[in-house]
Amino acid sequence: MPNYSNKKTTHVTEKVSTASNRGMNFEHAVTSSFDYYLNQKKCLILKRPTPIHVVRVDYSNNARIKDAYFEKQSTADFNGVYQGKYIDFECKETKSKTSLPFHNIFKHQIKHLKNVIYFGGIAFFLIHFVTMGEVYLLDAEFLINEIETSNRKSIPYETIKSKGILIEQGFIPRLKILDAIDKVYFDEKTKTHC
Amino acid sequence: MPNYSNKKTTHVTEKVSTASNRGMNFEHAVTSSFDYYLNQKKCLILKRPTPIHVVRVDYSNNARIKDAYFEKQSTADFNGVYQGKYIDFECKETKSKTSLPFHNIFKHQIKHLKNVIYFGGIAFFLIHFVTMGEVYLLDAEFLINEIETSNRKSIPYETIKSKGILIEQGFIPRLKILDAIDKVYFDEKTKTHC
Repeated sequence: MPNYSNKKTTHVTEKVSTASNRGMNFEHAVTSSFDYYLNQKKCLILKRPTPIHVVRVDYSNNARIKDAYFEKQSTADFNGVYQGKYIDFECKETKSKTSLPFHNIFKHQIKHLKNVIYFGGIAFFLIHFVTMGEVYLLDAEFLINEIETSNRKSIPYETIKSKGILIEQGFIPRLKILDAIDKVYFDEKTKTHC
Repeated sequence: MPNYSNKKTTHVTEKVSTASNRGMNFEHAVTSSFDYYLNQKKCLILKRPTPIHVVRVDYSNNARIKDAYFEKQSTADFNGVYQGKYIDFECKETKSKTSLPFHNIFKHQIKHLKNVIYFGGIAFFLIHFVTMGEVYLLDAEFLINEIETSNRKSIPYETIKSKGILIEQGFIPRLKILDAIDKVYFDEKTKTHC
């Protein structure tokens, strides 16, 4: 079982639901893994800031924001560079033991990741099965094709297990995501790119 | 002279100084140019959201943010993908007719762009000489080397003019940035990459 205990403790996360807190912990595990990779000079992959529309700032109080709202996200969670290639991915998690429901994956995320693929970038999903404590890397092109062509409302756990790559877990990095990226996109595919 | 008239008119930009407004307009010209390129299916390059630390949210009022502050930026302004390659750049502008002062370029921006270069990405500065109405693309490696090795406190306009690429301006896209990217990074360099 993964230990995603190093959760953010802003006032915001304290107020949101348990499910969202789990989401934060998974995201935090991903973020901290890429912090490690950056320190090890392996790659530069960062979480995108949440877009916020600022309405009012109190300039008499050190530019404190006093009115703002969350804008609609138009991208995926993380992006960056590894071996010169552009990488972009979205984190998803589910309590289900049998499948990842498609309603978890938003239209803007599909549109964005399709664009990434079109422009030659690497796009995938990291899928956390909370109950089993397993995280998989699944190629975005494959998953989007399933969403757009199957009549199902979810993708079975067994399909993710067979078509994705199980991410090895450890102390540091907590998720060995780069090993999975190497396996899927660099060990095989790049040989045919040049 | 460029026409960067399509400025953002949030309460925030109305309150900031004239210099910052010019900044917004330049950034808006860059953003709208990449909107055009995305629509034309040329590349996917987006402005990064400003990181904001949210302290208090009013959930009784549609998740309106009631207390927050601007976090320290750790990256550059824009990033994205073009022909599979990772691209990252920072926009700078100056009213000076003779040079771009180095104090305009922050340590975190230098550190970030050096990382981008280290990991094989493309990194540059877009420099807007407000008085002349000219915008140049200047390779980040070159500019950072100038900052770190010269005894000057600025880089002369003439150096930027000779080492950079003047961005052609028009109605749409307002800044033909991709032509300059092609010229600097793809027409020559990529031939030796594969």
